[in-house]
Amino acid sequence: MPDLILSIPGDNRPAYLRIADGVRSAIQTGRLKPGEKLPSGRALARLLGVHRHTVGAAMDELVAEGWLQSGERRLRQVSAVLPSQFFEPQNGKPSLPQNRKHQWRLVRSAETSECGPPDNKRYRYAFQGGQPDLRLFPYDEIRACLSESLRRSPATRSGYANPAGHPYFIERVEAYLTHIRAVSGRKVIVTHGTQEAVFLIAQLLIKPGDKVAVEELGYSAAWDAFRAAGAELVPLRVDSDGVDPDALAEAAAQHRLRLIYLTPHHQYPTTVTLPACRRLRLYDIACRHRIPIFEDDYDHEFHYRCQPIAPLASSDPCELVVYSSTLSKIMFPSLRIGLLAVPDALYEPLLRLRMIVTRQNDVLLQDAVARWIDNGGFERHLRRMRRVYQERRDTTVEALEQAQARGLPVTWTVPDGGMALWMDCATDADAVAKRAAAKSVHVTTESAYRLDHRPGTHLRLGFASQTPNEIRKGMTLLMEAVAEQTRRPAAAVSD
Amino acid sequence: MPDLILSIPGDNRPAYLRIADGVRSAIQTGRLKPGEKLPSGRALARLLGVHRHTVGAAMDELVAEGWLQSGERRLRQVSAVLPSQFFEPQNGKPSLPQNRKHQWRLVRSAETSECGPPDNKRYRYAFQGGQPDLRLFPYDEIRACLSESLRRSPATRSGYANPAGHPYFIERVEAYLTHIRAVSGRKVIVTHGTQEAVFLIAQLLIKPGDKVAVEELGYSAAWDAFRAAGAELVPLRVDSDGVDPDALAEAAAQHRLRLIYLTPHHQYPTTVTLPACRRLRLYDIACRHRIPIFEDDYDHEFHYRCQPIAPLASSDPCELVVYSSTLSKIMFPSLRIGLLAVPDALYEPLLRLRMIVTRQNDVLLQDAVARWIDNGGFERHLRRMRRVYQERRDTTVEALEQAQARGLPVTWTVPDGGMALWMDCATDADAVAKRAAAKSVHVTTESAYRLDHRPGTHLRLGFASQTPNEIRKGMTLLMEAVAEQTRRPAAAVSD
Repeated sequence: MPDLILSIPGDNRPAYLRIADGVRSAIQTGRLKPGEKLPSGRALARLLGVHRHTVGAAMDELVAEGWLQSGERRLRQVSAVLPSQFFEPQNGKPSLPQNRKHQWRLVRSAETSECGPPDNKRYRYAFQGGQPDLRLFPYDEIRACLSESLRRSPATRSGYANPAGHPYFIERVEAYLTHIRAVSGRKVIVTHGTQEAVFLIAQLLIKPGDKVAVEELGYSAAWDAFRAAGAELVPLRVDSDGVDPDALAEAAAQHRLRLIYLTPHHQYPTTVTLPACRRLRLYDIACRHRIPIFEDDYDHEFHYRCQPIAPLASSDPCELVVYSSTLSKIMFPSLRIGLLAVPDALYEPLLRLRMIVTRQNDVLLQDAVARWIDNGGFERHLRRMRRVYQERRDTTVEALEQAQARGLPVTWTVPDGGMALWMDCATDADAVAKRAAAKSVHVTTESAYRLDHRPGTHLRLGFASQTPNEIRKGMTLLMEAVAEQTRRPAAAVSD
Repeated sequence: MPDLILSIPGDNRPAYLRIADGVRSAIQTGRLKPGEKLPSGRALARLLGVHRHTVGAAMDELVAEGWLQSGERRLRQVSAVLPSQFFEPQNGKPSLPQNRKHQWRLVRSAETSECGPPDNKRYRYAFQGGQPDLRLFPYDEIRACLSESLRRSPATRSGYANPAGHPYFIERVEAYLTHIRAVSGRKVIVTHGTQEAVFLIAQLLIKPGDKVAVEELGYSAAWDAFRAAGAELVPLRVDSDGVDPDALAEAAAQHRLRLIYLTPHHQYPTTVTLPACRRLRLYDIACRHRIPIFEDDYDHEFHYRCQPIAPLASSDPCELVVYSSTLSKIMFPSLRIGLLAVPDALYEPLLRLRMIVTRQNDVLLQDAVARWIDNGGFERHLRRMRRVYQERRDTTVEALEQAQARGLPVTWTVPDGGMALWMDCATDADAVAKRAAAKSVHVTTESAYRLDHRPGTHLRLGFASQTPNEIRKGMTLLMEAVAEQTRRPAAAVSD
């Protein structure tokens, strides 16, 4: 049997694999028959001029693959049923429908408003909201914190850990929520962004057919999570003061609402701050009808006119508010750190569910961010970005004022905070956005924030991620698009 | 009105907040009545001796809170309906059931096998499986890679990104899966550990009442994810060769199975490697009955006797295998990087669902790991740990051999790979584990891997996370526990 070792030039694999190949092909070509006994390991080793262990490894491999089986007195013999027979033609027919690809039955056709990365790169002027200016983040500071985390007994933080989050980070978050946002006495769970926070709450509280009240105009990524749990969405009117409490009163009278999803601080997408009287009224209605509230406070810190107004969660005697926040806007989105601050009653059930969905967040980043909070970097960055974004908001408003002065039919409300401005262009906003895209300007439009995607006249201008200079240039092009769409001669704009 | 500014000692808040407090308390105590007009901003500023803008900020705050409203000629007046009235007693009755805490209706009572961090710290000798030796990870290497990631244009990687994962990382993973695991021609999605991978597939393929076949003994965290999707679990027998294909054939004949969850490479928890003939037979049955297979290949690389055997996913003509892996064992669990490699047909639906659940993994860590793969650190660490774990397996086996030689009724099969050993102590394993825990030795028992948690005689000895010396000491104590439980005098063990 010396020909069992095939000396293929360039085959540098271990000898045992080449021996296994030789025996396998001897079986496949019929030189070795099912049931046939092989010589002993020692005998084979002598025949092949290799060590006995090498032969043993080859035989083990072939036994594992099913070509050989153990016979009497530890001798190997060719298997009675060969692995290849499972796949080779039997009685002239292939035993398996090999050409037939599996037809997958999907029980969910997850509807998402977007799938794939946002395509910022394709546009020179990107006015989409929600993205901070990533160029201004002090990456060196977080690098130093990560280094520190990886130097100081990292082995204690790299195992399976608490599904609620890294205790050191949670402590800092709790202090921050208490002192800056007046939210306290709650249990904190670290999530993978706001998305996982909404998803977990939807899975825990909503069953198919349940009604969930949402702001319309509103945040479609949250809608997707509610729909994935089987919710029917009940739209609540949004006006120039934010969501209308009367709309909630009507909806609550008409439907058994199981959850209300709100963005009170800076309404998404209009960035209006909900007045305190409306907040109180909404809370009152929710309490009376016993409907939990999901308060999504995604960019609390970016408030320019006065102190941010206290969240609903800061005064929640009925303990029905689930509060969420994120580091995506304060730091950067790819960090994937969101926060849930929930009443005691929800904590254990949420952790149990969380174990099933993603188990826990990565601890290294939480540890580094906690260090960054401790060394003052977090506060410093916040203060800086608040000034930067306020300037950018003002630049955007100036550009609009100039366009209005030139006779363009644009109107807007200056937002007290947030990272975007909601404007009315008094014409088909989708058409304007299309014209703008041709000029390499990206804006989102009212239809993206409607349940039925019906078109409207509003545009959302995210001003946070561009410099004042970029904003001015982009706004000039955008206003040209508005002018073109309203059929005014472009000359009227550029003079 | 100069008494409006309350000069409380130690109150260093901005003047506008103190002015707002003063006006608010004047309204609350009735000194200012609903509808009453306030003096102009200029007049108030003169009265209070502050700048007009300070008064403006205070008024804005009170308008936002609902205490004031805008009257004629821009004058502020006290609101007709005060915010406090929403909460204060009306007609002698409180308007809100404030003492009544919200009664949460939970639509899922997520059953998890564990909730909370594993309590390694409480035991001196931790034989739980699945945890690599975190003390041996080269944290400095990953620190250097993270630094690099944060130095080289980090802004391009910190925004919202591709939900499938970081393209640079995915490229490296695909090359790795192709060359080391022979798994190719699939689409890769990065997940938060194996847990999110199982969860996503369960959500996509399983609806309430569906039958899912699982190995028993098996992995309860995966069971939890299937149950969360409403699955009824159908157990498949596991014997000394791994899962029994006859059990699958019977189950498939009896039930409409919607998914089969398998750990072929190192069966969890027994660490047996499934022989190739069984793999082929299982695949054949799955194809004939058109049942998708979830192949969880969680510690492929740690194989000591020969080359790891190719996964089911490496030869999947029917395209019905979903393949998953994780960096939790190769690197460390708190990293939260898992991998799904799926047939084309599942890719888009999975990404849509993924957008809803957690959107994406954090990019920074993916980028750093890709750099670590590129600079050879990954392969180097793998080679090292394979040697280390093999030695630890052998140390564990030696300790068992010595115990057996001393007359203890322990039996085991030496696993070809993996990070744990499955042993039979021929007595109540839970009782042994309890005795061991009292000696500060942590082991898991057969009952944890049973659907009905019925007790058995097997223990799982995770050998990866302890040094040979720790293993020897821990095994001595564990064998004492076995001896005590089998009512042999402890002296028989220690001589």
